Amino acid sequence: MKNSIGTSVILTLAGESHGEMIVAVLDGMASGIPVSEEIIAARLSLRRPSGAADTARREPDRFRIVSGVFNGCTTGAPVCILIPNENVRSADYERSHLLARPSHADYVAHVRYGGFEDWRGGGHFSGRITAGIVAAGAIAAEALRRKGITVGTHILSCAGVQDAPFSDVDASALKREIETVSAMDFPVLTGCREAMEARIMEAKADGDSVGGVVQTAVCGLPAGVGEPWFSSLEGVIANAVLSIGGIKGIEFGAGFSLAGMRGSEANDAFCMQDGAVRTSTNRSGGINGGISNGMPLIFNAVVKPTPSISKPQQTVDMDTQSPATLQVTGRHDPAIVRRVCIVVSSLVAIVLCDQLAQRFGTDYLK
Amino acid sequence: MKNSIGTSVILTLAGESHGEMIVAVLDGMASGIPVSEEIIAARLSLRRPSGAADTARREPDRFRIVSGVFNGCTTGAPVCILIPNENVRSADYERSHLLARPSHADYVAHVRYGGFEDWRGGGHFSGRITAGIVAAGAIAAEALRRKGITVGTHILSCAGVQDAPFSDVDASALKREIETVSAMDFPVLTGCREAMEARIMEAKADGDSVGGVVQTAVCGLPAGVGEPWFSSLEGVIANAVLSIGGIKGIEFGAGFSLAGMRGSEANDAFCMQDGAVRTSTNRSGGINGGISNGMPLIFNAVVKPTPSISKPQQTVDMDTQSPATLQVTGRHDPAIVRRVCIVVSSLVAIVLCDQLAQRFGTDYLK
Amino acid sequence: MKNSIGTSVILTLAGESHGEMIVAVLDGMASGIPVSEEIIAARLSLRRPSGAADTARREPDRFRIVSGVFNGCTTGAPVCILIPNENVRSADYERSHLLARPSHADYVAHVRYGGFEDWRGGGHFSGRITAGIVAAGAIAAEALRRKGITVGTHILSCAGVQDAPFSDVDASALKREIETVSAMDFPVLTGCREAMEARIMEAKADGDSVGGVVQTAVCGLPAGVGEPWFSSLEGVIANAVLSIGGIKGIEFGAGFSLAGMRGSEANDAFCMQDGAVRTSTNRSGGINGGISNGMPLIFNAVVKPTPSISKPQQTVDMDTQSPATLQVTGRHDPAIVRRVCIVVSSLVAIVLCDQLAQRFGTDYLK
Amino acid sequence: MKNSIGTSVILTLAGESHGEMIVAVLDGMASGIPVSEEIIAARLSLRRPSGAADTARREPDRFRIVSGVFNGCTTGAPVCILIPNENVRSADYERSHLLARPSHADYVAHVRYGGFEDWRGGGHFSGRITAGIVAAGAIAAEALRRKGITVGTHILSCAGVQDAPFSDVDASALKREIETVSAMDFPVLTGCREAMEARIMEAKADGDSVGGVVQTAVCGLPAGVGEPWFSSLEGVIANAVLSIGGIKGIEFGAGFSLAGMRGSEANDAFCMQDGAVRTSTNRSGGINGGISNGMPLIFNAVVKPTPSISKPQQTVDMDTQSPATLQVTGRHDPAIVRRVCIVVSSLVAIVLCDQLAQRFGTDYLK
Repeated sequence: MKNSIGTSVILTLAGESHGEMIVAVLDGMASGIPVSEEIIAARLSLRRPSGAADTARREPDRFRIVSGVFNGCTTGAPVCILIPNENVRSADYERSHLLARPSHADYVAHVRYGGFEDWRGGGHFSGRITAGIVAAGAIAAEALRRKGITVGTHILSCAGVQDAPFSDVDASALKREIETVSAMDFPVLTGCREAMEARIMEAKADGDSVGGVVQTAVCGLPAGVGEPWFSSLEGVIANAVLSIGGIKGIEFGAGFSLAGMRGSEANDAFCMQDGAVRTSTNRSGGINGGISNGMPLIFNAVVKPTPSISKPQQTVDMDTQSPATLQVTGRHDPAIVRRVCIVVSSLVAIVLCDQLAQRFGTDYLK
Repeated sequence: MKNSIGTSVILTLAGESHGEMIVAVLDGMASGIPVSEEIIAARLSLRRPSGAADTARREPDRFRIVSGVFNGCTTGAPVCILIPNENVRSADYERSHLLARPSHADYVAHVRYGGFEDWRGGGHFSGRITAGIVAAGAIAAEALRRKGITVGTHILSCAGVQDAPFSDVDASALKREIETVSAMDFPVLTGCREAMEARIMEAKADGDSVGGVVQTAVCGLPAGVGEPWFSSLEGVIANAVLSIGGIKGIEFGAGFSLAGMRGSEANDAFCMQDGAVRTSTNRSGGINGGISNGMPLIFNAVVKPTPSISKPQQTVDMDTQSPATLQVTGRHDPAIVRRVCIVVSSLVAIVLCDQLAQRFGTDYLK
Repeated sequence: MKNSIGTSVILTLAGESHGEMIVAVLDGMASGIPVSEEIIAARLSLRRPSGAADTARREPDRFRIVSGVFNGCTTGAPVCILIPNENVRSADYERSHLLARPSHADYVAHVRYGGFEDWRGGGHFSGRITAGIVAAGAIAAEALRRKGITVGTHILSCAGVQDAPFSDVDASALKREIETVSAMDFPVLTGCREAMEARIMEAKADGDSVGGVVQTAVCGLPAGVGEPWFSSLEGVIANAVLSIGGIKGIEFGAGFSLAGMRGSEANDAFCMQDGAVRTSTNRSGGINGGISNGMPLIFNAVVKPTPSISKPQQTVDMDTQSPATLQVTGRHDPAIVRRVCIVVSSLVAIVLCDQLAQRFGTDYLK
Repeated sequence: MKNSIGTSVILTLAGESHGEMIVAVLDGMASGIPVSEEIIAARLSLRRPSGAADTARREPDRFRIVSGVFNGCTTGAPVCILIPNENVRSADYERSHLLARPSHADYVAHVRYGGFEDWRGGGHFSGRITAGIVAAGAIAAEALRRKGITVGTHILSCAGVQDAPFSDVDASALKREIETVSAMDFPVLTGCREAMEARIMEAKADGDSVGGVVQTAVCGLPAGVGEPWFSSLEGVIANAVLSIGGIKGIEFGAGFSLAGMRGSEANDAFCMQDGAVRTSTNRSGGINGGISNGMPLIFNAVVKPTPSISKPQQTVDMDTQSPATLQVTGRHDPAIVRRVCIVVSSLVAIVLCDQLAQRFGTDYLK
């Protein structure tokens, strides 16, 4: 499937960092979902670089919806959104494009595509492509919202500074937290923003970059979504989230800390609450046996430090196959942790629309 | 795809814990791969419960290959392997099957399948089904081995006891480590087996269970395998590995520890070695931009403590929707960390065969 | 997908003509569908050779359901059915297996699988594999029947003898016709059986074979099933039906005769009937724009004469690449038109279960 | 997959008849394929209405390639082509859009999408969308041509006037015929154009329309492409071709005429020719057992008369569910047989690129 994801609701991405535009096609969405350009614009603005801690490349993201929407609602036909690249400065890349940037996709692209790849700004591997995810995800998120399902992501840690985790048992507290962070351009639950930004700016001053962990929560997802074995809800979410550049790991619920627990600590006891089956803890992150159990769905994803740093680095010239020293120029983020939050939420919204449509039919979200 | 995984090479699983047999169908393998019943049997024995630290249910795994193999080699048609269940004792489950076992799939199965699910021993959600993965994976692993690609998994930690990690830069050292652990029924790189087993037995004595982390490495995978965005090598491996019951997280290369690094520490500098492009560290776990870079592919997966413990637990009766206390009987593992190693290696072998066939054609592995 | 078909409801086939057994795995069927071994046996008997006009190979089809059924109903987990091959006589094939039988799959199998293919009796390409389609299709047909949807196939022509076509506008007449032919071992609507059988026996006496056209109808399918463009209902049915060996063409509604009509003849005028939108003719075969329109779904498929004939034929030796004369021995049908009817109905039933599950959710058929 | 087709090489379509533009995304093409805007334009011109026998709507098809091409060649990333709709006159449709046009998709779209569908000019179901198939197919056809594989389609019959069939055994004669018809805006092999056009104009004068049969041939396809059972080459081609609006049937090789043949007539005897295995006839249309046999691949597809005719027709008002009389206005083709030829060739070229990439790897076409 390469640049498409989903079975009933399918996102396809095209475009390059320094190409003419980013293209997102969202196919299979139920008809009748209201599409608000304001909501799409607002969500795109959360992804956009904005402060000193972000890249100097500022794209206005003047998107156009060119199909699949009629009289303000989805028609059921594929929705195509175009997002022009307006602020392109390829000259930064020209001198050095045969010097593979360490931990970036340059080298694998060269091997995979034999030198025909568009190397300008990372080409099709660039984080710029995630603008398409956010634009399409805005429609998916709205469809979910109408069914009482909300998705939010915040920075759980950045450059060693911790935020508090989401509430994972109390659904109404979680719902408020999701609302709160979803409106923030620097989404954190506690007053850790300043400390995080300070660390990011320190790294930038050193010509370096930092990473972090983002935490995503879904509230309102019904029990019984997902499949055993090879379409587990954990698996399909992981496949989606790990496709985002820079994300190198994912853990559901208590995740890696489960390794040190005993079963009696790790197990989530079932209980009745307001006539519904719930669990009194949520180490499982809302998923058992690959299927949602009706509790909040929670996962963490690790974001590596941006590989594009201005410190000199050892590398090789891909043409001559000889050692070289690289000093990356161009405009880059010293941390993408902030900007990746809305990307993860958007992609998860699309994945959940797909899961719900597979489970309950193509009209479920209508 | 539910119980099938793959595009060019496809594994389909059927069967239940207490049903007649486990069925694995491996479709799309190149023709001409030698199939050794001894190798399959040997790999199944690594998955089989064997000591005091494992479940008392001991299955002989007398498998039969009923299609797709002719004159000792794969024909290119689907290979179907049947593994009878011979040691079934369903009575253990009868009394309590409406009491959902905490953190097990009982409740979600009840919601998803409306009470029609086979609840005996976890039914289709049981770890017993992984016998099919191991049997089919033995053929995949052999196909890879003929191309110089080896896959191995060891216990990186169990119940708080650590093993040493795989060599992640030195391919020849790694190759030896993979060979070593692949032959061990308790796969560890250092002398930590006794300490781990002691902790497992302690938990068992307490009617409890423990978890751990397993580490998998692939040696010999060529650069250029995988796709950008939604078929990233990380994504397809994560989707596969997270489908294994009890695995709740995965991280590639330095994984979650990347969150605390700076780019200058996290980046893997490129270098020339013996005429080939390599990296001098391997924080990326052999994958950049979703595509293999020719370095060892390394990932860790966390295995939660077995949810079936004999300590009394709070739960609900799914029929009456009332609180209840459950004391799980039946035969269970106090830790599945040991047994899951060969399952992960086998599934990854199948996924890599699929990736290689997609990339280089259906005859590549021939 | 190779030997699997479907998205929400998926059939996977394995097995060879002279192997141990045929294996069918039906995944994704809703839970709670009653499974009757009698119905499966009855449908398998319609596929079984029975008279002088069929092959002398008679298989008892003593199938076993080894997973996915519990307490008489589907569980929602994959249903695996095993059908042993009991009446195998491979010696017929040994002498000549390098002589490619004209218009059979021997040569392409040799090219595709490089000589590793199981050539006994056509191996995995044999019509014997369709027993798996019929067994799995019996469950699908029963699921459809519970929703008021029936599927039937009759011989529209054989060896130049014509049967009458199905009623294509009057749904209640069609429903009765489907019931009638579905119970017949030689399914025709008029008294043409004797004439057809006489022609078949004539061909057999000449060491030759004959072909024909089968017609399939579906009654009760709701409007609105199918997708525009690449998942058109016509396309998915055609893909399924053309996978059956010997079928070389398919036409929906008036099919190829539309080429000679004018629009004013070909168009199906809409009308109201008993409060429902209907059409007064059904040249479209129940499908417009790739989506069902609520009228009976009707298509014809052409079945070529069985390629295995005992007359001497010119061919080549695939090993020496030299011309040769072949006289096919073994046990073969002089016509498969009769036996293919239940295969087409069964496969279409599975395809429609898949389409309905995609459209209305996984529990729709429950 | 809805509006996407393919596994390794994937086409996705978006757009509506009266929307802003048609969008085609071609993903998975090998890198390094030269992309000529002239060739794309030339092929689009073959699809464009041009004479009195075509619709009065004339679109300039000023396409733009906005991704996936760099320095004149494919990069391996998805190629997105935008084709603006410039000559839109929706007012024709406004008065009558609730009157379902007989044998058109209006009614099923209304049922499937609940009234939210874009009904202007048939919306997403319009033949206008095939411009995207032709544009993307131009790249696929060029990739095939570089490997010696050519695809061509001509009008085998139109309104009762017959053309001669393609040569189906003599590959070099066929190759020339393909070249000839591929350059013709009214592709026929004999001097039947005038007679066909006369019949079309007669129908037009009567406010009516006509249908026909198109024949497609592929020359140079290697043997061994396709899979048994559910990915048969016949099945995947049929699925593609039947997705084109107006096509209601397909037959391979001798097709429906096989029904009246005996095996001894229908079978294609194998022979050696210039050191290669060939067949002396080609009733099979180049496919045995679902796999190409190295002979020319030949199939016919029936195109129904254009459903939009200006004669008054009985229909229903979809809103009031009452009978109504419809007189279609708007600009329509009295026959689409001519224009559909390049659409079929283009779609088959894409399907074959996909099949070849699956069989021989993603770099095969490079």
